[in-house]
Amino acid sequence: MDIWEENVNEYVSNYSAITKETGKLFIFAGDQKIEHLNNDFKGDGISIEDANPEHLFKIAKYGKIGAFATQFGLICRYGKDYPDINYIVKLNSKTNLVETCQKDPISTLLIDVNDIVEFKKRTGLKIRGIGYTIYLGSEFENIMLSEASRLIHEAHKNGLIAVIWIYPRGKAIRNEKDPNLIAGATGVGACIGADFVKVNYPKSKEPEVDFKDAVASAGRTKVICAGGSSKKPEEFLKILSEQLNISGASGCATGRNIHQKSLLDAVALTYAINEIVYNNKTVEDALEFLKPEIKEKI
Amino acid sequence: MDIWEENVNEYVSNYSAITKETGKLFIFAGDQKIEHLNNDFKGDGISIEDANPEHLFKIAKYGKIGAFATQFGLICRYGKDYPDINYIVKLNSKTNLVETCQKDPISTLLIDVNDIVEFKKRTGLKIRGIGYTIYLGSEFENIMLSEASRLIHEAHKNGLIAVIWIYPRGKAIRNEKDPNLIAGATGVGACIGADFVKVNYPKSKEPEVDFKDAVASAGRTKVICAGGSSKKPEEFLKILSEQLNISGASGCATGRNIHQKSLLDAVALTYAINEIVYNNKTVEDALEFLKPEIKEKI
Amino acid sequence: MDIWEENVNEYVSNYSAITKETGKLFIFAGDQKIEHLNNDFKGDGISIEDANPEHLFKIAKYGKIGAFATQFGLICRYGKDYPDINYIVKLNSKTNLVETCQKDPISTLLIDVNDIVEFKKRTGLKIRGIGYTIYLGSEFENIMLSEASRLIHEAHKNGLIAVIWIYPRGKAIRNEKDPNLIAGATGVGACIGADFVKVNYPKSKEPEVDFKDAVASAGRTKVICAGGSSKKPEEFLKILSEQLNISGASGCATGRNIHQKSLLDAVALTYAINEIVYNNKTVEDALEFLKPEIKEKI
Amino acid sequence: MDIWEENVNEYVSNYSAITKETGKLFIFAGDQKIEHLNNDFKGDGISIEDANPEHLFKIAKYGKIGAFATQFGLICRYGKDYPDINYIVKLNSKTNLVETCQKDPISTLLIDVNDIVEFKKRTGLKIRGIGYTIYLGSEFENIMLSEASRLIHEAHKNGLIAVIWIYPRGKAIRNEKDPNLIAGATGVGACIGADFVKVNYPKSKEPEVDFKDAVASAGRTKVICAGGSSKKPEEFLKILSEQLNISGASGCATGRNIHQKSLLDAVALTYAINEIVYNNKTVEDALEFLKPEIKEKI
Amino acid sequence: MDIWEENVNEYVSNYSAITKETGKLFIFAGDQKIEHLNNDFKGDGISIEDANPEHLFKIAKYGKIGAFATQFGLICRYGKDYPDINYIVKLNSKTNLVETCQKDPISTLLIDVNDIVEFKKRTGLKIRGIGYTIYLGSEFENIMLSEASRLIHEAHKNGLIAVIWIYPRGKAIRNEKDPNLIAGATGVGACIGADFVKVNYPKSKEPEVDFKDAVASAGRTKVICAGGSSKKPEEFLKILSEQLNISGASGCATGRNIHQKSLLDAVALTYAINEIVYNNKTVEDALEFLKPEIKEKI
Repeated sequence: MDIWEENVNEYVSNYSAITKETGKLFIFAGDQKIEHLNNDFKGDGISIEDANPEHLFKIAKYGKIGAFATQFGLICRYGKDYPDINYIVKLNSKTNLVETCQKDPISTLLIDVNDIVEFKKRTGLKIRGIGYTIYLGSEFENIMLSEASRLIHEAHKNGLIAVIWIYPRGKAIRNEKDPNLIAGATGVGACIGADFVKVNYPKSKEPEVDFKDAVASAGRTKVICAGGSSKKPEEFLKILSEQLNISGASGCATGRNIHQKSLLDAVALTYAINEIVYNNKTVEDALEFLKPEIKEKI
Repeated sequence: MDIWEENVNEYVSNYSAITKETGKLFIFAGDQKIEHLNNDFKGDGISIEDANPEHLFKIAKYGKIGAFATQFGLICRYGKDYPDINYIVKLNSKTNLVETCQKDPISTLLIDVNDIVEFKKRTGLKIRGIGYTIYLGSEFENIMLSEASRLIHEAHKNGLIAVIWIYPRGKAIRNEKDPNLIAGATGVGACIGADFVKVNYPKSKEPEVDFKDAVASAGRTKVICAGGSSKKPEEFLKILSEQLNISGASGCATGRNIHQKSLLDAVALTYAINEIVYNNKTVEDALEFLKPEIKEKI
Repeated sequence: MDIWEENVNEYVSNYSAITKETGKLFIFAGDQKIEHLNNDFKGDGISIEDANPEHLFKIAKYGKIGAFATQFGLICRYGKDYPDINYIVKLNSKTNLVETCQKDPISTLLIDVNDIVEFKKRTGLKIRGIGYTIYLGSEFENIMLSEASRLIHEAHKNGLIAVIWIYPRGKAIRNEKDPNLIAGATGVGACIGADFVKVNYPKSKEPEVDFKDAVASAGRTKVICAGGSSKKPEEFLKILSEQLNISGASGCATGRNIHQKSLLDAVALTYAINEIVYNNKTVEDALEFLKPEIKEKI
Repeated sequence: MDIWEENVNEYVSNYSAITKETGKLFIFAGDQKIEHLNNDFKGDGISIEDANPEHLFKIAKYGKIGAFATQFGLICRYGKDYPDINYIVKLNSKTNLVETCQKDPISTLLIDVNDIVEFKKRTGLKIRGIGYTIYLGSEFENIMLSEASRLIHEAHKNGLIAVIWIYPRGKAIRNEKDPNLIAGATGVGACIGADFVKVNYPKSKEPEVDFKDAVASAGRTKVICAGGSSKKPEEFLKILSEQLNISGASGCATGRNIHQKSLLDAVALTYAINEIVYNNKTVEDALEFLKPEIKEKI
Repeated sequence: MDIWEENVNEYVSNYSAITKETGKLFIFAGDQKIEHLNNDFKGDGISIEDANPEHLFKIAKYGKIGAFATQFGLICRYGKDYPDINYIVKLNSKTNLVETCQKDPISTLLIDVNDIVEFKKRTGLKIRGIGYTIYLGSEFENIMLSEASRLIHEAHKNGLIAVIWIYPRGKAIRNEKDPNLIAGATGVGACIGADFVKVNYPKSKEPEVDFKDAVASAGRTKVICAGGSSKKPEEFLKILSEQLNISGASGCATGRNIHQKSLLDAVALTYAINEIVYNNKTVEDALEFLKPEIKEKI
């Protein structure tokens, strides 16, 4: 409702583009070069292709995704060669160097929404929305809540979609994946007006059941799930399917599970995820895309 | 007196709407999705309906209240479908994750008064005023006093009503419900020019008598009482009646006592509260609305 | 000299009004509802009338004073009914809840000079100047020195009088009432361009002699004395007379000694103070006003 | 080179006025009423005349100096009666109450360069430049470096001279007068574009030799020396002469050594310093001005 | 891609000038007068010529370099006499006085990009870009990441090249030269859109191999290597050659290794470096320039 009348068309067009008119969203998350530095991009089980940041753009281009979320600087560097990707600009990021036991997490704006709006106008790049991370329960929570709330409004006024990452984290948080706490986090996302709130999947005996609370608590704000560390595709897709079909989540934001693979494997996985998120397919159907003979044809 | 001449009509109209021309105010407080996360919305004795944030809007729509106070983001998400509610936009909010023993409380603006004014103009939504919480005695008290004082002036200039929540809280506060301290809090509300100041009800042998000091100290700023945790309706209404008729309070801001009930029970309770606050009725009269046979007819 | 030419008349008129063309100043200080919360307004030896903030305005109206200093919010609430009072808007205030041993004092702007200037223009209220408190020696001294220095300049540009409260306070201060330290404080007032600097009266064997240093150190900035806690009128007036006639002070800023009395007694005391400050009368002459038969006639 | 073309004449005129076209600079430093409170103005060996801040202006008027550096507030109070003094407005100041062992020093802007520029235009006062103190090695060094760097640029754009006081100070500094550290400080002055950098004279076996490093390190930024605590005139002038003629310094900024004397003695000393700094005279020649019979004739 | 269309020519021209159309960059780094105070400019093995800051400008003028990076203040002081140097304005700098064990490093803007752009227009000086240092892993990382990200965008909009120094440093960093951490740092440079990121050369058994990760991680952002403390020219050039030809680095930013030499030696060394960086020559070829008989002819 806070979308300016003159930008409603823009908003609708952005929303349709990334949800493929299903109300679901599959974000290919690529902000880890700041968040996790080089740890996510080199090491055991990580494809050598992942060492080059262009790998992310190639996946986003050749894969089937809703949107690719990454920092503004990277988009400036590669956007010209990848004009057809739907971008979510991740507006804040921090490294993982300072641990919570040293200082509670704080991550602040790297660039303003207005800069993004102007940039979009000048370049015509398909920037569909913005992203921002809040560490709920940090001693600096108020700074991030305030930045997030304001930028969501700024984004909406200009017709952009707002996706908020909310992670409970800080000395005060004993269990980051407590189901009730996650449901609190999605509620906060609703209260500040996010279109989509991305949270971690709870850790419990029946996470797919417990996660329903988070979906309920968010109301009209849609809930998508972080992918977490790399898992086997079957396991990953099974959990994703449960999140959507049992918990009622609206999609996922997946990074490492995708980009730590070779381009071919990564693209195939995006096809599989795309089937589950947007086409309501079963895990078995989705797994088809991962079969070697099918992958080749993509 | 700080209302701009061109906005006096707006102010009067807002004031009349929420006080129903009685000078009293019954706020249905719905900011707990940030303040208390999911704890207030799921658990023993909490209606399953409360899990969905729309529950709050339904109560505000079907119930009899003066105004519904909640965060801007939620209003953006549901306001279009609930255009007849009188809204108070709660401008700041914090979670309860960081405890006072870890760090003194701080809660800062999520959005500016000017954004609200512009939003109201564009949407025509019945935004009647703004709300803000100050933690008096916090080490960050000066930040909140300064924000509150400025936004009250900003609200008044634009014809909006200013309601300030003031809670003594922080390492320096030994007894948050000390009657004399509460009276100090309402006096602060007066000094920064609030129309209504919401405080906790003191804890003492005769709170209804001691609370008179808080009403006196506030002078022309009117005092309303926080509802606190859920109580039995009879008990709740009895205390409310004493606050108004003995202490001289001007109303209440009640949240959990209402929304943790089913829609039907919640609406019925708002009818009961409405009778006491606006129509000067007795507890007995008000309790009529809670009888099963009457509730059905609402 | 920093008064803008177009506002010199305004400045002169404000200055004349509060000094009654004597160069002296008697401020009735009424900012304690934030500074001391309810402690100054209810208790042993405090008139029951003091519980209502309007008491302050009544005293300011019926008493003989130079100016009434209080917060902007209160002026907004009562100014319309008390249009003939000369007001000093106290721009910052803090509560006394956080003690120095917990955190050094900090008190920041509640409202800007520009807001005051605009408010004065719109309402025609007799706002003669602004007030601000600096805690010298606090770890946050630089914040308050900077705010004060800037707002004095802003006030002067617009023709308003600037009165600065300066209290040495913080972990670094062992003796807040050391005469040499007080003389340092008044010198700071001069360096930031205050018209009047209000300080505590030193504690020493011969405070009236030692206080001369503070008056000298301030140069052309005039020194007025805080009233401190309630004393017997005779004692109070005797000290005041010594401050003016021996130390060379230019007046006083008195709060609790006045408003903790009934309206009649308070008004009578303002008459007495008025005689000493503005009319150069003796304590004996001034005490006349406190005799029951005279009081009745006021 | 950062002086705006339209203000080059202003800059040249200011530079000529305070250097008397010699490239040298003798600042009469009078910012101690904040920096040292009343300690520098009353006590053993301090003239009673020094208690009144006007003493500073009288010395600046009757003495022979390059410029008088003091706070804006004092200039506003006395400038009208002392229109012929060349002023340097000291833009920041702190008291000495909080010691380094409690908290590292921080001193921030009391007023902006733009305010000074506007004030100069309105009053025609001979404001030649601005001054600012940086505590290098303080934990808050970055705040002061940033403020200083920006205001030097702002001053230059408007044709004002920038004089920067740089004192290494803070828990990290073991020896504030280490020659190499002082040379570092003057280099910092150069890097932020100061016209003159004022530092303490090093403490070493041969300070006049070691101080050459500081002069070299500053390059085209000129180095002037702080006067320090009061010394006998002969000793003071001898050191000054060595600073200029051996070390290659460009002058001095002297406060206490001058103003703690009676007006007559102080003025005489300024004559003596003037001879050494601007007229390249020997200590013996300069001392002539201090002889009683000569002093009388000044 | 974030370069404004009207400034693309300016950007291309700046880029060509400092890379000599090779895509490589040799920065002569001269920001140590703040970063290391006088320690880098006087001492054993340091040419006496280095004591004068003009030494830096002479080297930049007579040597063969891509660009000279130093603070704005120095450029203001010497630029007029050195108009043909390609400048990189180093926008932030801190001293080395406060050690990490006392407080994590923070270095903030001394001047804004807009000031630089305006200065360039007014003076015509060949300012090609800006530089900024981020201490990754500092508790204040978010402040520097935010400043850097914004100023890179500001620089690009105006056609300036952005070079970012990134050093992991703070209590959280155990090994500043860990190869994987360095690769993380260059990735951050890419994410905020730097044209060039300057990092320390890793310390490991095969740094020239391990450094490949840093080059890969930066993608289209080019990596240049800090020079570190003074080494023998042969050793220095050998490492440089390996960085370029084995690791794939795009150049170097060298300070102390150059300016601690006499002008003649320093200039000769820049010739040698220039050969390796821009002309793809071998260490042997480059060393030719350091032979006494050749040096004389430069």
